[in-house]
Amino acid sequence: MEEVDHLAHERNNAEFDVEAMKIVWAGSKHAYEVSDRMARLVASDPVFRKDNRPMLSRKELFKNTLRKATHAWKRIIELRLSEEEASRLRFYVDEPAFTDLHWGMFVPAIKGQGTEEQQQKWLPLAYKMQIIGCYAQTELGHGSNVQGLETTATFDPNTDEFVIHSPTLTSSKWWPGGLGKISTHAVVYARLITDGQDHGVHGFIVQLRSLDDHSPLLGITVGDIGVKFGNGAYNTMDNGVLRFDHVRIPRNQMLMRVSQVTREGKYVQSDVPRQLVYGTMVYVIDYKTQQSRLFPLLASAYAFRFVGEWLKWLYTDVSQRLQANDFSTLPEAHACTAGLKSLTTSSTADGIEECRKLCGGHGYLCSSGLPELFAVYVPACTYEGDNIVLLLQVARFLMKTVSQLGSGKKPVGTTAYMGKIEHLMQCQCDVQRAEDWLKPNVILETFEARAARMSVACAQNLSKFSSPEEGFAELSANLVEAAIAHCQLIVVSKFLEKLQQEIPGKGVKEQLEALCYIYALYLLHKHLGDFLSTGCITPKQGSLANDQLRSLYSQVRPNAIALVDAFNYTDHYLGSVLGRYDGNVYPKLYEEAWKDPLNDSVVPDGYHEYIRPMLKQRLRAARL
Amino acid sequence: MEEVDHLAHERNNAEFDVEAMKIVWAGSKHAYEVSDRMARLVASDPVFRKDNRPMLSRKELFKNTLRKATHAWKRIIELRLSEEEASRLRFYVDEPAFTDLHWGMFVPAIKGQGTEEQQQKWLPLAYKMQIIGCYAQTELGHGSNVQGLETTATFDPNTDEFVIHSPTLTSSKWWPGGLGKISTHAVVYARLITDGQDHGVHGFIVQLRSLDDHSPLLGITVGDIGVKFGNGAYNTMDNGVLRFDHVRIPRNQMLMRVSQVTREGKYVQSDVPRQLVYGTMVYVIDYKTQQSRLFPLLASAYAFRFVGEWLKWLYTDVSQRLQANDFSTLPEAHACTAGLKSLTTSSTADGIEECRKLCGGHGYLCSSGLPELFAVYVPACTYEGDNIVLLLQVARFLMKTVSQLGSGKKPVGTTAYMGKIEHLMQCQCDVQRAEDWLKPNVILETFEARAARMSVACAQNLSKFSSPEEGFAELSANLVEAAIAHCQLIVVSKFLEKLQQEIPGKGVKEQLEALCYIYALYLLHKHLGDFLSTGCITPKQGSLANDQLRSLYSQVRPNAIALVDAFNYTDHYLGSVLGRYDGNVYPKLYEEAWKDPLNDSVVPDGYHEYIRPMLKQRLRAARL
Repeated sequence: MEEVDHLAHERNNAEFDVEAMKIVWAGSKHAYEVSDRMARLVASDPVFRKDNRPMLSRKELFKNTLRKATHAWKRIIELRLSEEEASRLRFYVDEPAFTDLHWGMFVPAIKGQGTEEQQQKWLPLAYKMQIIGCYAQTELGHGSNVQGLETTATFDPNTDEFVIHSPTLTSSKWWPGGLGKISTHAVVYARLITDGQDHGVHGFIVQLRSLDDHSPLLGITVGDIGVKFGNGAYNTMDNGVLRFDHVRIPRNQMLMRVSQVTREGKYVQSDVPRQLVYGTMVYVIDYKTQQSRLFPLLASAYAFRFVGEWLKWLYTDVSQRLQANDFSTLPEAHACTAGLKSLTTSSTADGIEECRKLCGGHGYLCSSGLPELFAVYVPACTYEGDNIVLLLQVARFLMKTVSQLGSGKKPVGTTAYMGKIEHLMQCQCDVQRAEDWLKPNVILETFEARAARMSVACAQNLSKFSSPEEGFAELSANLVEAAIAHCQLIVVSKFLEKLQQEIPGKGVKEQLEALCYIYALYLLHKHLGDFLSTGCITPKQGSLANDQLRSLYSQVRPNAIALVDAFNYTDHYLGSVLGRYDGNVYPKLYEEAWKDPLNDSVVPDGYHEYIRPMLKQRLRAARL
Repeated sequence: MEEVDHLAHERNNAEFDVEAMKIVWAGSKHAYEVSDRMARLVASDPVFRKDNRPMLSRKELFKNTLRKATHAWKRIIELRLSEEEASRLRFYVDEPAFTDLHWGMFVPAIKGQGTEEQQQKWLPLAYKMQIIGCYAQTELGHGSNVQGLETTATFDPNTDEFVIHSPTLTSSKWWPGGLGKISTHAVVYARLITDGQDHGVHGFIVQLRSLDDHSPLLGITVGDIGVKFGNGAYNTMDNGVLRFDHVRIPRNQMLMRVSQVTREGKYVQSDVPRQLVYGTMVYVIDYKTQQSRLFPLLASAYAFRFVGEWLKWLYTDVSQRLQANDFSTLPEAHACTAGLKSLTTSSTADGIEECRKLCGGHGYLCSSGLPELFAVYVPACTYEGDNIVLLLQVARFLMKTVSQLGSGKKPVGTTAYMGKIEHLMQCQCDVQRAEDWLKPNVILETFEARAARMSVACAQNLSKFSSPEEGFAELSANLVEAAIAHCQLIVVSKFLEKLQQEIPGKGVKEQLEALCYIYALYLLHKHLGDFLSTGCITPKQGSLANDQLRSLYSQVRPNAIALVDAFNYTDHYLGSVLGRYDGNVYPKLYEEAWKDPLNDSVVPDGYHEYIRPMLKQRLRAARL
């Protein structure tokens, strides 16, 4: 193919010196030059090809990463690259690999927490890659919560050793990159026990696999935790699971820069701040923010379910009218379905991703079902009409509706509220206490006033442009916001209407009421700027709405699981280890891990070609 | 494993009748019963197993889908399921398949747009699955923009046929599900030409493949468009590409319910609204909202680059102090890095996904590079500390800082602004014209006032609780918002500081100034509720900020490509067909499509076992 540059015109029109900007971006001329040189080195080497990744199976992907990481190391040696150059080269190889953890976590942990003596013994082996290390902190039941770790390291004064042990299933080390199939050593974080006393979490260097044949050492169970989010992504890496059955290590493999255990088993603590010990990983504690992230999503599920029911009715109604050659409601119905498609698919895609993040690391495993759910759902935001484009259609319809308000043509259906525009433009919300936000008419009028005022403001701004189309293009972002306000009003009003119906069953209606107000007040808080800038509510009323929202969360809390049970999904349909009906997640997570294809063999495919020559320092002779 | 229910306690505590709620959720008792029965039927059938999907290669996944879809059809026949039951069964099989398009688009298109005669001919074949249909509307260069379609259907009065043709590369049909390897027929949307006159887009039934051996008919080029987002997801399906080289079809295969072409080639149009013709797919037009979605991301990239530079300096500074046993700045540095980690990783993950959606359907193809980028990046929101948990740490530090304000202990580093708390609590923003928002001090003080007031408000609310920990838990959502306000202030202030430096190169500094204000004013608009509810700005000033933002977008527009060029990424590093330096995207998208493993053979693996027996009505005898 001949050389083309379809963007040459864009580049010629730029009003600044792009070469100078490259240096600003890189941080310095030196950084720019190193980066540029390493980027080109990687791009020109066929071993570092990466365009075929989505087509590779899990095993092929992993083996290919072993090849790339080993080849990168070979090039670093051959070209005698500096540490800075080597680090940039690895950056541009751009494939998560065991080497990231070796250089980024294992080596710094020994540097930061090891004594002089320990550094002299272990660092040269690590620098030459005669050993490969990983960083084993996180456990199956304990994410970044270091204080909750369960693994123990008990000092045995008889043999001058520590006994590393995993007392429970949840104490299994879980997630460490490079652990699953490759690392020969790990820095393991465990509770230090001397003479029956628990001294908190400390780091220990533990050998995991034989340096001769790569088989796990006695008492060590190790494997990969399974397939992860994305086609390639972190599936290039062997995030691992690790259990210890009374594994013994010499006393001098405790990282002793900060605290020591003496030959007699005495614990000696320095007065250096504890943050230093976990310097490699940020130290965190768990809090209760989940409700404010999860319950609005639960409420949205019910809200969308009911607006969906109503849409079915609308569809039947419009179809019957069309049969009778009555096209009068078609534009309104079209704007309404377009807007609701946009609103619900965007909220749902974002909601799935939010739920995935709420599950912490486990939500990134395919066995959680959430990555699959997201990937299947998210194209709905694009297909059958991009969501933003659809909202602009809604906005166009709203602008037309506003422009006809004076003409005597009465707005119909979901735009009927525009008929009382004069009232909505000047009405005052009369909320004085948090409970006032639980009145259907207060909610409805507040949402109507916000939607009406935003549409009218857009119409007024549009009228300032000489050409309507120019104005529409220029103000498109504001028009989209007005359309969203209108669509949210539809969902809220249909939920309120549903509550007017008779709904049998003990407590059912009360729960739906709580969910309806959660949905509305969550939107009010999320779009507070809209409500305040249009003067629909005061800052004080916004704050009261937030207070009411918090108390609704407490009200829904005991019913949360049962509200999800009501969806009546089978475990098969959900396909999620975390979403199981019985809540028995940890044993199932553990069980699923072993199904990863990488766990088919103890020594992974690629070990003999790539890893062994590296460990044995025979890379120069190797054909990669 | 014995039966467990770890959630029994939750279920016992629920305050409503979950069986009644199930019926509310399903919509009716009947809908509940059908759904429940079909869900159980699917869950209990081993052919419908889906937990192994992430482990299957593309070809295995696809073949497995053929098996499932065929087995579902066999069960529907064997059990004589009603249309409603069959539709629920397919829903619970929960695997995107060619049958979705056959039943959901092909059949409805013929029903809605075909004449009585056409329906009588084609629907029985489709209902029995003696033919398999798809819906070929979208083209490589034209997403949901129906008016832009290029495929032509030219009437030839000599033979009473239409000639279907793809005049350009961008007119290739692109995305239709089921098209790639399976469909025997398609409803194809093409511009109708009679006697040299273009009558706009109409639908035509076109046979694509032989019903004997499944090979594509003469003049038809057809294949799969490649691997898509997600481990399983839509990779179970054969989204396809289709080109016509003067393919002839009989005149009676134009869908003629709404418009007709006579034997003489006369075009007869009915007066039914055009919306009906595209009833199956929402009808859209393209607008200019891209700038307001893309430019804040571009500005964020530069903002994060510079705050990153500053963080490197901070890290060195803290390390040097620690060496000298000075721990005084450690808590502030810890809060600052934790907060910035949270802010930048969340914004970046969301930004990648936003860019993906901005590319429309093409962003969902792996060849765009965006799915991979998202999957690799997004775990950063969780690892090394969940982002919300980190923000709560920042909030805790802020509350401590506020509580010590009276004590004479001076706030340091990034919290130094709290030292002028009295001023910040009562200062008034003096913006009167849009251009006033381009003053660094105005921006800085507005962001400082917002952050300070939100922190103080939280502190005041906390003091109302009897126990600080209870208050902290209860108010956590507000505390997170205060922490975000503080972190955004840091990023904005470091960007403003960068602009104080000397920056060489023609126009470089001007561009960075524009980006800095875009970043700040975009945040101001996004968090307008914060700024208004704390009284930092008036609604009028918020509206002026938005006006200024729009004019900054116009200012950056001619420089957008060059500002990205300055990142100096190689095409290899980006790994994106859409992000190519030369902008030559369509030929490359087309070229990449053929690399999909499904395109290795013309007739896909699984055709003989599953598809042919279905088409030939020999399913009862088939072993699936």
